[in-house]
Amino acid sequence: MFKRMDEILIEIPKVEKPDANAAAAIQELLGGKFGEMSTLNNYLYQSFNFRSKEKLKPFYDLVMSITAEELGHVELVSHAINHCLRGSTEYKKPDSTPLEAAKDARLSYHFLAGAQGAMPFDSMGNPWTGANVFNSGNLVEDLLHNFFLECGARTHKMKVYEMTDHPAARAVVGFLLVRGGVHVVAYAKALEIATGVNVTKLVPIPSLNNKSFTEAKKYEDKGVHTKLYTYSDKDFTSIGQIWKGTHPEDNQPLEVIEGTPKGYPIPEAPAVEEEFAPGISEEEFKEIAKRLKMAGNIKE
Amino acid sequence: MFKRMDEILIEIPKVEKPDANAAAAIQELLGGKFGEMSTLNNYLYQSFNFRSKEKLKPFYDLVMSITAEELGHVELVSHAINHCLRGSTEYKKPDSTPLEAAKDARLSYHFLAGAQGAMPFDSMGNPWTGANVFNSGNLVEDLLHNFFLECGARTHKMKVYEMTDHPAARAVVGFLLVRGGVHVVAYAKALEIATGVNVTKLVPIPSLNNKSFTEAKKYEDKGVHTKLYTYSDKDFTSIGQIWKGTHPEDNQPLEVIEGTPKGYPIPEAPAVEEEFAPGISEEEFKEIAKRLKMAGNIKE
Amino acid sequence: MFKRMDEILIEIPKVEKPDANAAAAIQELLGGKFGEMSTLNNYLYQSFNFRSKEKLKPFYDLVMSITAEELGHVELVSHAINHCLRGSTEYKKPDSTPLEAAKDARLSYHFLAGAQGAMPFDSMGNPWTGANVFNSGNLVEDLLHNFFLECGARTHKMKVYEMTDHPAARAVVGFLLVRGGVHVVAYAKALEIATGVNVTKLVPIPSLNNKSFTEAKKYEDKGVHTKLYTYSDKDFTSIGQIWKGTHPEDNQPLEVIEGTPKGYPIPEAPAVEEEFAPGISEEEFKEIAKRLKMAGNIKE
Amino acid sequence: MFKRMDEILIEIPKVEKPDANAAAAIQELLGGKFGEMSTLNNYLYQSFNFRSKEKLKPFYDLVMSITAEELGHVELVSHAINHCLRGSTEYKKPDSTPLEAAKDARLSYHFLAGAQGAMPFDSMGNPWTGANVFNSGNLVEDLLHNFFLECGARTHKMKVYEMTDHPAARAVVGFLLVRGGVHVVAYAKALEIATGVNVTKLVPIPSLNNKSFTEAKKYEDKGVHTKLYTYSDKDFTSIGQIWKGTHPEDNQPLEVIEGTPKGYPIPEAPAVEEEFAPGISEEEFKEIAKRLKMAGNIKE
Amino acid sequence: MFKRMDEILIEIPKVEKPDANAAAAIQELLGGKFGEMSTLNNYLYQSFNFRSKEKLKPFYDLVMSITAEELGHVELVSHAINHCLRGSTEYKKPDSTPLEAAKDARLSYHFLAGAQGAMPFDSMGNPWTGANVFNSGNLVEDLLHNFFLECGARTHKMKVYEMTDHPAARAVVGFLLVRGGVHVVAYAKALEIATGVNVTKLVPIPSLNNKSFTEAKKYEDKGVHTKLYTYSDKDFTSIGQIWKGTHPEDNQPLEVIEGTPKGYPIPEAPAVEEEFAPGISEEEFKEIAKRLKMAGNIKE
Amino acid sequence: MFKRMDEILIEIPKVEKPDANAAAAIQELLGGKFGEMSTLNNYLYQSFNFRSKEKLKPFYDLVMSITAEELGHVELVSHAINHCLRGSTEYKKPDSTPLEAAKDARLSYHFLAGAQGAMPFDSMGNPWTGANVFNSGNLVEDLLHNFFLECGARTHKMKVYEMTDHPAARAVVGFLLVRGGVHVVAYAKALEIATGVNVTKLVPIPSLNNKSFTEAKKYEDKGVHTKLYTYSDKDFTSIGQIWKGTHPEDNQPLEVIEGTPKGYPIPEAPAVEEEFAPGISEEEFKEIAKRLKMAGNIKE
Repeated sequence: MFKRMDEILIEIPKVEKPDANAAAAIQELLGGKFGEMSTLNNYLYQSFNFRSKEKLKPFYDLVMSITAEELGHVELVSHAINHCLRGSTEYKKPDSTPLEAAKDARLSYHFLAGAQGAMPFDSMGNPWTGANVFNSGNLVEDLLHNFFLECGARTHKMKVYEMTDHPAARAVVGFLLVRGGVHVVAYAKALEIATGVNVTKLVPIPSLNNKSFTEAKKYEDKGVHTKLYTYSDKDFTSIGQIWKGTHPEDNQPLEVIEGTPKGYPIPEAPAVEEEFAPGISEEEFKEIAKRLKMAGNIKE
Repeated sequence: MFKRMDEILIEIPKVEKPDANAAAAIQELLGGKFGEMSTLNNYLYQSFNFRSKEKLKPFYDLVMSITAEELGHVELVSHAINHCLRGSTEYKKPDSTPLEAAKDARLSYHFLAGAQGAMPFDSMGNPWTGANVFNSGNLVEDLLHNFFLECGARTHKMKVYEMTDHPAARAVVGFLLVRGGVHVVAYAKALEIATGVNVTKLVPIPSLNNKSFTEAKKYEDKGVHTKLYTYSDKDFTSIGQIWKGTHPEDNQPLEVIEGTPKGYPIPEAPAVEEEFAPGISEEEFKEIAKRLKMAGNIKE
Repeated sequence: MFKRMDEILIEIPKVEKPDANAAAAIQELLGGKFGEMSTLNNYLYQSFNFRSKEKLKPFYDLVMSITAEELGHVELVSHAINHCLRGSTEYKKPDSTPLEAAKDARLSYHFLAGAQGAMPFDSMGNPWTGANVFNSGNLVEDLLHNFFLECGARTHKMKVYEMTDHPAARAVVGFLLVRGGVHVVAYAKALEIATGVNVTKLVPIPSLNNKSFTEAKKYEDKGVHTKLYTYSDKDFTSIGQIWKGTHPEDNQPLEVIEGTPKGYPIPEAPAVEEEFAPGISEEEFKEIAKRLKMAGNIKE
Repeated sequence: MFKRMDEILIEIPKVEKPDANAAAAIQELLGGKFGEMSTLNNYLYQSFNFRSKEKLKPFYDLVMSITAEELGHVELVSHAINHCLRGSTEYKKPDSTPLEAAKDARLSYHFLAGAQGAMPFDSMGNPWTGANVFNSGNLVEDLLHNFFLECGARTHKMKVYEMTDHPAARAVVGFLLVRGGVHVVAYAKALEIATGVNVTKLVPIPSLNNKSFTEAKKYEDKGVHTKLYTYSDKDFTSIGQIWKGTHPEDNQPLEVIEGTPKGYPIPEAPAVEEEFAPGISEEEFKEIAKRLKMAGNIKE
Repeated sequence: MFKRMDEILIEIPKVEKPDANAAAAIQELLGGKFGEMSTLNNYLYQSFNFRSKEKLKPFYDLVMSITAEELGHVELVSHAINHCLRGSTEYKKPDSTPLEAAKDARLSYHFLAGAQGAMPFDSMGNPWTGANVFNSGNLVEDLLHNFFLECGARTHKMKVYEMTDHPAARAVVGFLLVRGGVHVVAYAKALEIATGVNVTKLVPIPSLNNKSFTEAKKYEDKGVHTKLYTYSDKDFTSIGQIWKGTHPEDNQPLEVIEGTPKGYPIPEAPAVEEEFAPGISEEEFKEIAKRLKMAGNIKE
Repeated sequence: MFKRMDEILIEIPKVEKPDANAAAAIQELLGGKFGEMSTLNNYLYQSFNFRSKEKLKPFYDLVMSITAEELGHVELVSHAINHCLRGSTEYKKPDSTPLEAAKDARLSYHFLAGAQGAMPFDSMGNPWTGANVFNSGNLVEDLLHNFFLECGARTHKMKVYEMTDHPAARAVVGFLLVRGGVHVVAYAKALEIATGVNVTKLVPIPSLNNKSFTEAKKYEDKGVHTKLYTYSDKDFTSIGQIWKGTHPEDNQPLEVIEGTPKGYPIPEAPAVEEEFAPGISEEEFKEIAKRLKMAGNIKE
């Protein structure tokens, strides 16, 4: 079971700089094979199917809790996409071709299927698919997979960072480089404990350090890369048996924090009349407001 | 952002009655076009991309909070599948063909890709896909979609209920018929408020009542169909402006409950040695236990 | 533009002999790569995109008219599937597991997504896809494709014929072997006229004659294999410039017939209450009947 | 069974204004999830699998006849795409790179797979798939689906209209907004009769009226939005029991017309030599013309 | 560039024991995400795109040469499938339903699309896809991927081994467990050299040794697990800089062999008349034989 | 079984002229329905499943040997793509957005999933799929398919040639037009021998001769279109019973050559630091070089 908060993980800069192709690129980090939908669903299904969890509780707790963090990542990347799309078009009457600017955008779905919002698709518009989920049930194999998956996810983030300097994109990708880096190390540590082999020494893959990315370094300077959260009110505390010792890159001591990091308000997304979103006129708003305030059933 | 609990929504009966084809059928309710992955992700993305949420807060809160409940449904259906698979095979040495019983099962992925666990696939093994997500951004259109989607999801549940009497399947599907029914009514009420048209009078579709299904009636007798939860510690309370009045089928008064329903422990899933899951020998367990207890880094 | 008749191409024997796996096999002839959806859509799109149709009118007319016949084939195969499914289950209360018999059927979608009816899927439940359409725009290449496609379609029909002796399946597949055979010859003749090469001598591929299939021979004995219809009230008559001479297999003279062949009534499909189809109770029927008879709007 | 006419539904303006990306956008209306291939095939399969059609004849007739109209829509949209593509390239010798202009077009398939013609793909080149067909068999659920589908299809048309002012695109999309609008209302009326709930009051979704689109208003001014055709020589006349009363938006009286609307000639599509379409030289034309005129078999 | 030999890697036992569902299971090892098509194409594309191969020659040579071995694995698995299918049906006239036995087989494509032969599909009939190829270009990341891929491939082989005791399946899967195991170790050694981290200590994953599978042990007893071939007449010899030292499981010394292992004749596959394969009558054989012996062109 | 050489089929001009969209177009010739992956895998699987090969040895040998040539074509096209991508970006620090130039490229996977290298995808980024493989088992039908497939493949090459004049693209596509043309004729000749019908007279399709393409003519002037190689050290020599007589287009005598054509060195691909490929620093190179030179195991 999960609970939700009306918050996201960071404050996204409010710069209006419409860049539909940057938004398309970031979709790879959402619905691509190595996107947040993939990390989320891999851990979600591994957590459902975990065997011998009593004996292997810290591993179970690790997968359970990271799943919850990934939900927040899916959310955050989606908001980054939305920020890059913001202002792509402006309202004109239909005959004045208000969506003309979108005709040559690489990812037409943003404008035709949706109303300039994130979708579970990759940078070419191919939908995320359950075929991206791996769950052998073998503890070592699943951990090895997760370690590889996080390295691949990190590489994709590095490339998207290098592809656009849109402030919203940079802020979100920089943050996720750090948090994805935490998951790389967490699965490496888990593999180490499961096998006795010093897998953390492989980190980072690629060998370029997060600190080379200003928007990531900003967070590492604050120690964000050393903290793992339980993402729960009271469960999953045994992750401290895995997340311990020091960070392999800068030897900072690692720390488990119960609960979630502090969240930030989710910014209002303005109406886009030329996309009919939300498509409620002032008069309709008033009628709706009345019905919302009525007690009991609206219609009998 | 989301938090997780180490609990599921109901207690699943612990009957060992392996039925791989029942498990395959239930996969439709997980990864099918009308499965829980679809309801979850539709609301997840609609919540990310919601426009004018300030003016339309109760609608926003509705979509935000139901998303969190759907995560628990994805989890619960997965456990139902796992229960149906339990005992499908038993350990023998590899040369003794321990997985032979699985060779004729309809859904080979349960045995080859996974270790007899749920996957984001439908009943024919086709992976869930992001193409199942609809989000026009138009409030009325999205609500209409959600209402239709929930009716379709309910129909699929009714059919799976009729296809297998496996106790775990029946318990979970019966419960989800009721909770899915709540979502049908919730989106109907939302549509009513958004448009003034009495959409709730269409309920139920199909017209056969949940009370015709003993395992669903059990929950309706307790009023489970009248409660909508905020699934949050403190947010999303405005859903009461939509979830109000009475239930269209039995006129019971509707009620909003802050937080989540009471959860139940997630049962231990035993090792399946013939699937190498988790694939840890007694000796390896001991070594792992030692490493878990060590302080600091495992390897230097 | 197209018109529709409330008729199908042959009378399907009314034998109730439920065979879900035979129905699944026939789906290959509907939604498979070489199914009727493929022949239909290949010719449909080729007809839309036909270039220089004035100079090449008989070729254009050929593709235009065969498209219309293919619509009737899609319809006929669908009814064959429906006949094979008929009686697969019988009504019992939900708790009595009325769909249990369907749990082990190869193609679960027939029972879960649909109500025991045909779908645009192949024999493994993979959906028909537009990727099956070929249209290079080059006349000779498109005709060569169509000739190959029809040979492949014929082979699949031969195999399905050999896979089930369900009377409805046999009747439909036997008839379609003959009509598909007509299209094989028609495209071979067209290729001959376009190139001067005697492609009809390749016929039949595979070399086993339709007359070896009793249910096909029945129609060839009546000369059904020698007739090509314009499938139009007044257009497409120039196909006689291609469909001329004799049949390459038995030297019967070929004949063009303006209009369509005689049709047959489409049989009533009974309600399947355990699938909620159509899901209208006697009382509801009465209410509906009243509203159907009312003049003007139903609701104001 | 179906018959075909050598006509399309409107006259498309003959303006040569090559715009490959406009053509790509319109593909969404052809092969997208909410494109004409989807409406066509949904109704086609629902008509095949319709249960209790005797008791529910007007509903059956509605689905049967609209299917035939959809075939004409698939055809019309395809011709709009072809018009937008016309003139994209011009003939030069292969070494002179005649297709260079197409290298940067969004949808490469138009130039590589086809010869600048419509294909059953969406705006990103993803093929139409049978997974887009819904047919529960439950009358109310299928009607609800169709109502939702048509609303979604209408929204997509509104957006494409706003994305390009290509005269061919505007003419076709404007017309289809009106005819699609007819289907929205038709399914709303059908739902009303089936349930007694005033679903037509939800229309239009989105709430922006067709009359706001000049190329649609043009047809509404002529009453095109009030007419439903049987699309048959003699069948499906009972649709008048559903299509009755007045239009929910402007209260014009509704009218059923037996047969089809008046059609228009399908314009000649010129050869595109640099695409080898149709790829017939003058000399070859002469040879072909001779063979077309010959009596009997071409080759013995 | 590649050369081919008319040989396969082992002698497959000639036992006729038709088992279509065993054949279906083995398809996972051919066209599944972890099948031989995946290992083949991953290394094929990595070899095409390898950067800085001069400095990294032994790694380049490793990927180049293993690709060639994988082609032989694709071939070998295909023959195993063919052996399991052999005898599934027997010839009868079409009216006698000779393919009836195949109607309930899990994988209908074996009988409808093909003539009882292997296909690039997985155990559920889902086609192999290029989406299974990973090639980041980063040496360490690609090696880590390959190591993980081979572990996953090995796990699938272990499960298929346990699923069927068909002699052909066992012989081929046993052999491939050993050769796949060689690739696991080879990529582990390569990772070790690239990073200095002792990845070979993770081997084997799952921890059950190949020697527990009699048909694999048979080959390990002969040292097949210690040999890596260059699969080339004269290239790729630098793999000895990686494939050196001892095997991590039994400490046997490793050995590089230039060229390929000894091959075995590919057995004749008999005609299957009821599948029209090859569909050549005795009389036709004679005509063909004559034409094969003619000098010059067959037709002028 | 196969062997590999460290060579490719032609020398590719070393012109640096980055053109990402040309690279995207060429992907159609690699991973498209009519790309080299399709010809390769069609023949690969047909060779595995060939029935009655003793009686039909020259046909078997033809398919076996052409498969090996196709592997070289897959390789060559991949290198053409790599050459077109070369220089697309240049190194800058991550914060300086070194991949910005790639943001608007049509095929984002080249930059995000890979490191500017070829992938088994088509020109729209849709992955190659096993559904492109046809193998009925019927000799004549498979040959007809292959003849059609090669005509389609040739048409796609003609179009890509016309789409870009990038020297690497032209050189490779020109060469492959000739070699693909050889396969067109080879399958036409095989069909002729199998059936006695003069299929070679259909050649070329489209009727524009390869000699109209300067980069293809160059090879035909040297007789490259008249030679078929056994692609084997000692097998497949019976192809001379099919590849005999003269070429249908220019009447040059045909010739079988045992073995492969002369190959050319595969050029070094430079590091792309901004893509982390291969991602090895100078210092790391030195450490790796040391470990490569060490005897025995790297780690104990």
